[in-house]
Amino acid sequence: MSGIFGMNLKLSIFGESHGKSIGCVLDGLPPGIALDLEALQLELDRRAPGKNNLSTQRKESDMFEIQSGFFEGHTTGTPLCAIIKNSDQHSKDYSILKDKMRPGHADYAGYVRYQGFNDYRGGGHFSGRITAPLVFAGAVAKQALAQMGIIVGAHILSINTISENKFNPMGEADELLQEIAGKEFAVMDDAVGEQMQARIISAKADNDSVGGVIETIVQHIPAGIGAPYFDSLESRLAHMMFSVPAVKGIEFGEGFAISQMTGSTANDEMHYVDGKVATTTNHNGGITGGITNASPVLFRVAIKPTPSISREQNTISLAEGQDTKLTIVGRHDPCIVQRAVPVIEAATAWVIWDMLLEAKKWEK
Amino acid sequence: MSGIFGMNLKLSIFGESHGKSIGCVLDGLPPGIALDLEALQLELDRRAPGKNNLSTQRKESDMFEIQSGFFEGHTTGTPLCAIIKNSDQHSKDYSILKDKMRPGHADYAGYVRYQGFNDYRGGGHFSGRITAPLVFAGAVAKQALAQMGIIVGAHILSINTISENKFNPMGEADELLQEIAGKEFAVMDDAVGEQMQARIISAKADNDSVGGVIETIVQHIPAGIGAPYFDSLESRLAHMMFSVPAVKGIEFGEGFAISQMTGSTANDEMHYVDGKVATTTNHNGGITGGITNASPVLFRVAIKPTPSISREQNTISLAEGQDTKLTIVGRHDPCIVQRAVPVIEAATAWVIWDMLLEAKKWEK
Amino acid sequence: MSGIFGMNLKLSIFGESHGKSIGCVLDGLPPGIALDLEALQLELDRRAPGKNNLSTQRKESDMFEIQSGFFEGHTTGTPLCAIIKNSDQHSKDYSILKDKMRPGHADYAGYVRYQGFNDYRGGGHFSGRITAPLVFAGAVAKQALAQMGIIVGAHILSINTISENKFNPMGEADELLQEIAGKEFAVMDDAVGEQMQARIISAKADNDSVGGVIETIVQHIPAGIGAPYFDSLESRLAHMMFSVPAVKGIEFGEGFAISQMTGSTANDEMHYVDGKVATTTNHNGGITGGITNASPVLFRVAIKPTPSISREQNTISLAEGQDTKLTIVGRHDPCIVQRAVPVIEAATAWVIWDMLLEAKKWEK
Amino acid sequence: MSGIFGMNLKLSIFGESHGKSIGCVLDGLPPGIALDLEALQLELDRRAPGKNNLSTQRKESDMFEIQSGFFEGHTTGTPLCAIIKNSDQHSKDYSILKDKMRPGHADYAGYVRYQGFNDYRGGGHFSGRITAPLVFAGAVAKQALAQMGIIVGAHILSINTISENKFNPMGEADELLQEIAGKEFAVMDDAVGEQMQARIISAKADNDSVGGVIETIVQHIPAGIGAPYFDSLESRLAHMMFSVPAVKGIEFGEGFAISQMTGSTANDEMHYVDGKVATTTNHNGGITGGITNASPVLFRVAIKPTPSISREQNTISLAEGQDTKLTIVGRHDPCIVQRAVPVIEAATAWVIWDMLLEAKKWEK
Repeated sequence: MSGIFGMNLKLSIFGESHGKSIGCVLDGLPPGIALDLEALQLELDRRAPGKNNLSTQRKESDMFEIQSGFFEGHTTGTPLCAIIKNSDQHSKDYSILKDKMRPGHADYAGYVRYQGFNDYRGGGHFSGRITAPLVFAGAVAKQALAQMGIIVGAHILSINTISENKFNPMGEADELLQEIAGKEFAVMDDAVGEQMQARIISAKADNDSVGGVIETIVQHIPAGIGAPYFDSLESRLAHMMFSVPAVKGIEFGEGFAISQMTGSTANDEMHYVDGKVATTTNHNGGITGGITNASPVLFRVAIKPTPSISREQNTISLAEGQDTKLTIVGRHDPCIVQRAVPVIEAATAWVIWDMLLEAKKWEK
Repeated sequence: MSGIFGMNLKLSIFGESHGKSIGCVLDGLPPGIALDLEALQLELDRRAPGKNNLSTQRKESDMFEIQSGFFEGHTTGTPLCAIIKNSDQHSKDYSILKDKMRPGHADYAGYVRYQGFNDYRGGGHFSGRITAPLVFAGAVAKQALAQMGIIVGAHILSINTISENKFNPMGEADELLQEIAGKEFAVMDDAVGEQMQARIISAKADNDSVGGVIETIVQHIPAGIGAPYFDSLESRLAHMMFSVPAVKGIEFGEGFAISQMTGSTANDEMHYVDGKVATTTNHNGGITGGITNASPVLFRVAIKPTPSISREQNTISLAEGQDTKLTIVGRHDPCIVQRAVPVIEAATAWVIWDMLLEAKKWEK
Repeated sequence: MSGIFGMNLKLSIFGESHGKSIGCVLDGLPPGIALDLEALQLELDRRAPGKNNLSTQRKESDMFEIQSGFFEGHTTGTPLCAIIKNSDQHSKDYSILKDKMRPGHADYAGYVRYQGFNDYRGGGHFSGRITAPLVFAGAVAKQALAQMGIIVGAHILSINTISENKFNPMGEADELLQEIAGKEFAVMDDAVGEQMQARIISAKADNDSVGGVIETIVQHIPAGIGAPYFDSLESRLAHMMFSVPAVKGIEFGEGFAISQMTGSTANDEMHYVDGKVATTTNHNGGITGGITNASPVLFRVAIKPTPSISREQNTISLAEGQDTKLTIVGRHDPCIVQRAVPVIEAATAWVIWDMLLEAKKWEK
Repeated sequence: MSGIFGMNLKLSIFGESHGKSIGCVLDGLPPGIALDLEALQLELDRRAPGKNNLSTQRKESDMFEIQSGFFEGHTTGTPLCAIIKNSDQHSKDYSILKDKMRPGHADYAGYVRYQGFNDYRGGGHFSGRITAPLVFAGAVAKQALAQMGIIVGAHILSINTISENKFNPMGEADELLQEIAGKEFAVMDDAVGEQMQARIISAKADNDSVGGVIETIVQHIPAGIGAPYFDSLESRLAHMMFSVPAVKGIEFGEGFAISQMTGSTANDEMHYVDGKVATTTNHNGGITGGITNASPVLFRVAIKPTPSISREQNTISLAEGQDTKLTIVGRHDPCIVQRAVPVIEAATAWVIWDMLLEAKKWEK
């Protein structure tokens, strides 16, 4: 079990929701990468709550402070630690969380795993807040990738049963991806986005919550990145994605739908375009045999509805050793999908960069 | 990039379809595990082709030979190497595979990754044959898990558009899982299985291929196995599954469907049953916060249709640097889903055992 | 290349001498370990400079601040981050260090490795100051080991050519080890210690520096800890020790001297003592075949003289691309051996704890 | 605990002295490395016993058979497995080794570690025979390094109390290193070598054994290879060396002697030679701050006398639970230093290549 991820770039994440600070250590960063600190902060701001009525009204500043590994505007090549201080927390009593296990949350699983010693306040290390350092790390990776011409973009494909169109699997305009990233609600079609937001507001009014699907594309990634057994690009991306709280599924290219296609329709035929190898379709999500094949990398992740809801639920009391009822009070997100978009992008960028460094080892 | 997987149990896989042998090294096996060698061979036989008209008519013996790490009927605790000799191969000319890239296969991706030096005969290291050592490793893990009372079972949920019922997410009878494992076509409902097989035969007659979905359940696994960031049980399982050729998606519990549920329906309420903690539903596939929560672990993987089909396809000729046509000749599987069942079970068992050892470190 | 060490306990270290803070992340700590924070601070104080005329007069507070992974007096099992703020640094100009490479230091090697982007102020990431987080980590490990009855102790065996007696390889009284740890100058024989200190003062007066040898013993460690190929206890300890700046050699038991013994004298015969297996001698330093054999673990590390000296030295100017002279100004340690004692103890404790967790995996 | 070593090149070793075969898997080898198989076999032959009266008279063929990862004369980039079959073993009864623990051997430590399940015949996994696959792996690395112009050489510096001169730390002629490697007894000065051999014969006649010191040099390695915390080149080399059976000490450059030097003499001053950076001395063994500094890498390892001797020794009987006497019968090496030379070279080459790949990741 490890709070560290990556082969060549190792990301170490730490922190609890109500501890002193949360943060990360980025190990293995190549020296000499120029970082735009304002752009890094913007990525953190995309994830931050409290901006509108779609998310919790908690205000979290999420200002990062680099401690090491950065000098005169560039990475040094030594471990880069960034911390985000937790603001003064409400003095409210969290002890109910120590006793009554919230359904859909990690409370009970974590209680067993950590033998009752975990910091339960606000979800502790399981809190979605811990994705902030992940966004920081991924934002560094996104800048490095951009310097290589590689773009990572994502959109909200669906909220509950309301969907917009999928990305064109052969690629979208880079400008479109940037435009989406700049939106408060990351969709291509704002009209559909309005419906999605209405669905979230409706769930909130109903003391309920909703989930959705996020689709991600990586453009201009070269062929030859990845491996079969056991570090396929799909393996590495999936590994990372399931570390993001609330993700319950991932599929590449056509994904589950490809299981209903036939070989003659599912295979991506190949041809030369201006002397370069290309596929004519992209049912495989840009990856065959675990390795990029010159098409964009494309995948979708399923996000479950926020488990925190204001309705009474049946659960257990550990203290009493018997069944009980629980009504979660306080502010929580009726939907986390829109806030998860920069998290998924960040997580993607970190993996892609790590895999690109992997390929560099064999360069002639 | 690594041909090695696992944290405490490290599985190293090697081999090419037409090399001298394929095999694996199992590192970190606890000493003193009694192994039933016949049962190991049966698992390999489940995967082997040539048994019926649903798979390739190639006969592969897949007899394993343990080289080390096994003494007087037990694991020794030192690395266990097993090899499976490749039988004499047809002297047929595979050089077309060096030139014409098969659509849907890793040919082009592998060519770039390995800079043209990979053994292309029969797919080389990308061949599905390389899953045989994975089955061996997983079969060892299954025996170890069984000694702890933990059962891994799987069934063919669908072939193309034909599906049978899902497993009961709260668990099935262990005997049913064993019964399914003993079938040549691993379904619960043989009548549906007949339809699935007919669909495969029909695809074959059409010079085409089909895919499907495999569902897996892990029963009697204790709560508290796994972690958040970055070794969630979902992360580790997904990582492994996407190393299995042809897997294009994975989902836990309700998976993608959970994104269309609301929190009040998706949350698994908890209660005590005979003094033990249990959930009343299992929409989360037995995992919350990356950690088992006392329910069975449940997930599904999507398998794409076999990319080898006997139809003419458009592709590229690397030698000529231009577009060409390719018709793949020879024997190949019209569907690999039924042969993938023991592979998925094996891969699951390896991960679960690894994670159980992880948890042992913190035992008081 | 990695700023992370350990198999089950992963220690991630970050920081530069003149950055915002230095620190560490301790990953994999078992939950529920009670930590005595004052005792932790005492270990840091043992390493801190400025206490006497044997070390640099720089005052560094080295106060640690735990950010995460610690709750209500115990480890939580989640990553524990501790930072040590760097006090306001002199505004002095360090730019000479960017140009003129100090002999014996990592300046040139680091310049090449980090492509000129490393923070050169005060040695940056190469500064001995970065051992402070290592001491913190090891102090946590020492507390955990003490709770298991395992004691790590060290003494200054020699400074330059002045030596005191070696530890009795069969073990010393635990109280003696604790007594030594409480001394400002960690020797068994204070009279010899006086001579050693005089030697350091004399080197300082001569604008020169001296090194020495530290001997370490681990008592009450059970047999069966370690492995052959490739994680022998000697391998893991040596790996860690050579990460401590200025260490140039390590030897276990008789070490280099064993190469001049014969088998009949070097072999440690075995016998039963009160029904327990023991060796009659300990020429092998408690380890055979990479695994503890019931005797204390014993080793020595050689520490080179501090490379910073106030004499003029020949070196190169990178800016001018030609030979030059350099006289290092400022305060530096005429000897770091006495300050390295708690570092070596800490590094040892971390490795031993990690290896003990490794062994737990196989416990029945 | 792991039978796998390396960061970018992962070496997995398996086998027992009396099992079916011993071997290794080389993971991460770059594709397209041309291998001279005859030269590989020569390295194995250097290690093989039975050539003269200095080593055991056992004849072991040590013929390697590549199973995978090698195609048309080149590495493919996929895992390369090589096995060495164990010849038919004497039917002699090894059961005494299960009961009476040989002093100086890993018998007891291994018994505890493996809970009595290890294959004790001929030392099992602890047998020096298991270094044969390590030699194979290192021989592959040596060929790859030679293609980059990097030479690894070693000599027997001492046997018992008889020494020849050390290597010139500033480097020796490459031809000299090759000449030494071609000798049956790897010394620079054959006259001293004769004395060393006489000392071995004398020990043998006395039913005793002797050890020695091996010195290794790596020439033409570029500056900038390695890291501080925690993968210093010294750390990685030491880690590997202590995995070689019988190694009890390692020192770089002046090693333990540097602890008796002063800074003004120990520091390696720098200057330009033909426009290239060089040191004027090499007391630091080519490594400062864990990173190569443009001088040759130089280190020595201490090898203990063979623990197997034909004299009666005191030890324990596990079966009887009491003290006993043991006289080891059979053929064994009165000295293993001369056979360890190719092992140490191989182990060095593997580490150096791994570290060079590490540096490639950051190449612009």
